[in-house]
Amino acid sequence: MLENLDKFANLRRDVAKINLDPLQRGGFLTPAARAALVEWGDGYSICDFCSGSMDRIKNPPIEDFVHGALPEFLGIDEARVTHGAREGMFSAMHALCQGGDWIVCDGNAHYTTVLAAERAGLRIEFVPSSGDPNYQISAEGYAEAIERAYERKGNVTMAVLTYPDGNYGNIVEAKRVADICHDYGIPLMLNGAYAIGRMPIDAHNIDVDIIVGSGHKSMASCGPIGVLGALEEYARAIFRISSIKKNKEVELLGCTVRGAGLLTMMASFPSIVERVKDWSEEVAKARWFAERMSEIGIELQGERPHRHDLMFFKADNLYNISKIAKKGRYFLYRDLKDRGICGIKPGLTRQFKLSTYLLTREDLEKVLKAFEEIIGFYA
Amino acid sequence: MLENLDKFANLRRDVAKINLDPLQRGGFLTPAARAALVEWGDGYSICDFCSGSMDRIKNPPIEDFVHGALPEFLGIDEARVTHGAREGMFSAMHALCQGGDWIVCDGNAHYTTVLAAERAGLRIEFVPSSGDPNYQISAEGYAEAIERAYERKGNVTMAVLTYPDGNYGNIVEAKRVADICHDYGIPLMLNGAYAIGRMPIDAHNIDVDIIVGSGHKSMASCGPIGVLGALEEYARAIFRISSIKKNKEVELLGCTVRGAGLLTMMASFPSIVERVKDWSEEVAKARWFAERMSEIGIELQGERPHRHDLMFFKADNLYNISKIAKKGRYFLYRDLKDRGICGIKPGLTRQFKLSTYLLTREDLEKVLKAFEEIIGFYA
Repeated sequence: MLENLDKFANLRRDVAKINLDPLQRGGFLTPAARAALVEWGDGYSICDFCSGSMDRIKNPPIEDFVHGALPEFLGIDEARVTHGAREGMFSAMHALCQGGDWIVCDGNAHYTTVLAAERAGLRIEFVPSSGDPNYQISAEGYAEAIERAYERKGNVTMAVLTYPDGNYGNIVEAKRVADICHDYGIPLMLNGAYAIGRMPIDAHNIDVDIIVGSGHKSMASCGPIGVLGALEEYARAIFRISSIKKNKEVELLGCTVRGAGLLTMMASFPSIVERVKDWSEEVAKARWFAERMSEIGIELQGERPHRHDLMFFKADNLYNISKIAKKGRYFLYRDLKDRGICGIKPGLTRQFKLSTYLLTREDLEKVLKAFEEIIGFYA
Repeated sequence: MLENLDKFANLRRDVAKINLDPLQRGGFLTPAARAALVEWGDGYSICDFCSGSMDRIKNPPIEDFVHGALPEFLGIDEARVTHGAREGMFSAMHALCQGGDWIVCDGNAHYTTVLAAERAGLRIEFVPSSGDPNYQISAEGYAEAIERAYERKGNVTMAVLTYPDGNYGNIVEAKRVADICHDYGIPLMLNGAYAIGRMPIDAHNIDVDIIVGSGHKSMASCGPIGVLGALEEYARAIFRISSIKKNKEVELLGCTVRGAGLLTMMASFPSIVERVKDWSEEVAKARWFAERMSEIGIELQGERPHRHDLMFFKADNLYNISKIAKKGRYFLYRDLKDRGICGIKPGLTRQFKLSTYLLTREDLEKVLKAFEEIIGFYA
């Protein structure tokens, strides 16, 4: 009968100093975001001065952020804050597609693209990747996938591109994909969960119609939170007003992130605008790291030259060790953790992804040294 | 070009010491929740040890909470954490009803019930309240509303009851409503946004099939966060697994509150379990306050005896002052704020709601004195 509940309080986050997990690297709060979290932590704190539309709240200046800074940052007509990239994708699909319609999406898409489509009752035609070792998605693949769906009498009402994808960190030529989709009269939604907040991105420049991003993944925000932007022509449907309750947007159920998470995104935003300017340095660091990994027999997969901090590696040497090591395939997790490093999923050895985002070269040297030591120990 | 961004950081929450806003009173964080927020603030922090299902994470003990403590606390078979009560209602409607179906809901329902139904493509037959001054919803009204929908050839697939409603704090006889709905073979969903975390509630006892609650409104959690519970027979559909991505629940898009909010709910949970035991004292305090308000000419609306801390008042005397006061109808907001009190919407004078939840009698005396002084000043 509801006993021993103290186990739910006073919980510590038990992670190593260097966390290589790609889904954590862009989500660490800035000092300003941390302060916002403490100041605005209570329940519904941002709603004290709401007069009916969360995105129109003037104190704190949510309206300026959502209707001013955010669309400008994304290079899109209209933007809103959502519970995350997946919720943004579902909202767009649910608003723009009918049950039974088809979407076309890249074979490297995050699982949540598939779930969003499934929840909206849509069928999916995938654009397959080139497979091992580069896993590339060609823009032309979108034309072929659309044609395949048409052959099955599918009504294709949206295309989705994951940019970059969350497995290999590949960056597809989004502008070409957009051109192809537009030739067929199909809007393109960009899932920029690993892009927005890390790298410069402008929806107008790459000509995408809808764009989603993730606050917890890449915008130094307390999750769950994301952004959803759309061109005016699609925004009208996605952000349509209720026919019954005035000023309430149906697809957002009135309002979304009614809590401190939004204030952390806003507090981090000035830093986010600055940090995307350093993107070429982040890419250079990732390439340098991958080269060093190669020297110890751990090979980068995905496109080359690589253009993102999220990288997928193949390590036959670590896999061979897993066959003889104590604790088997969990040796790598344990041995890295012993050296103050985490973020590679427990049990993985032969293939794994990691991110170098915002890690210093000194920290990355420690990571390289750890891999070297571990391989050397079992040699 | 993205200038003056500092306005988004270092924002202070500018509220008075005594906040009477009903949607704030149950959301103030406990000290344990505040500590959790700081510890788990980063992005996706709870996901370090996720192996594919958020609600099965063992470190932190999310699985114990979601699959153990939470269903027991709600008195229901299965529970999940959602982005809020509205998102829980939409998930249940979207999973259990078909576009074009009808739902029946109380005329006092929160606007989000209407939005959730509209988003799911459902039509609504309302159970009207008795109107001024008690605004009561009768259980029999549900039978009449269902019959009206049937007369219009409506396929009624869900009933919703707001418990209590968010305007008057009225508590409908849920068990009788459930019995009536079940006679028609219709499941009843209880919107307990102002109940769960404040008052004792047990879904099995009142025989409801689906139940939603709000973490930011009533469970001392950092929003947005809510809970969604269902009987096994409905849980199967609501929490159905993807046909494409294994172990991922479609309606939740895989996982929902992947951030610190969940840890604040867990950290507050031991206090929540305790505080609902003090509910009769909260009700007694609300009644005492309403009686004192009556003595200065401000009259409680809604059911009597009143059974909730959320109360709706009518004040002809304040309305009359608004016609002569400087700043007109904004005088009340300003004059209360000058006395360290906020939470009544700016501009309201004739009718407004407030909550006494977790306020001390000393603080409430200050509120009463403030009203007295303000009325006296303009007399």
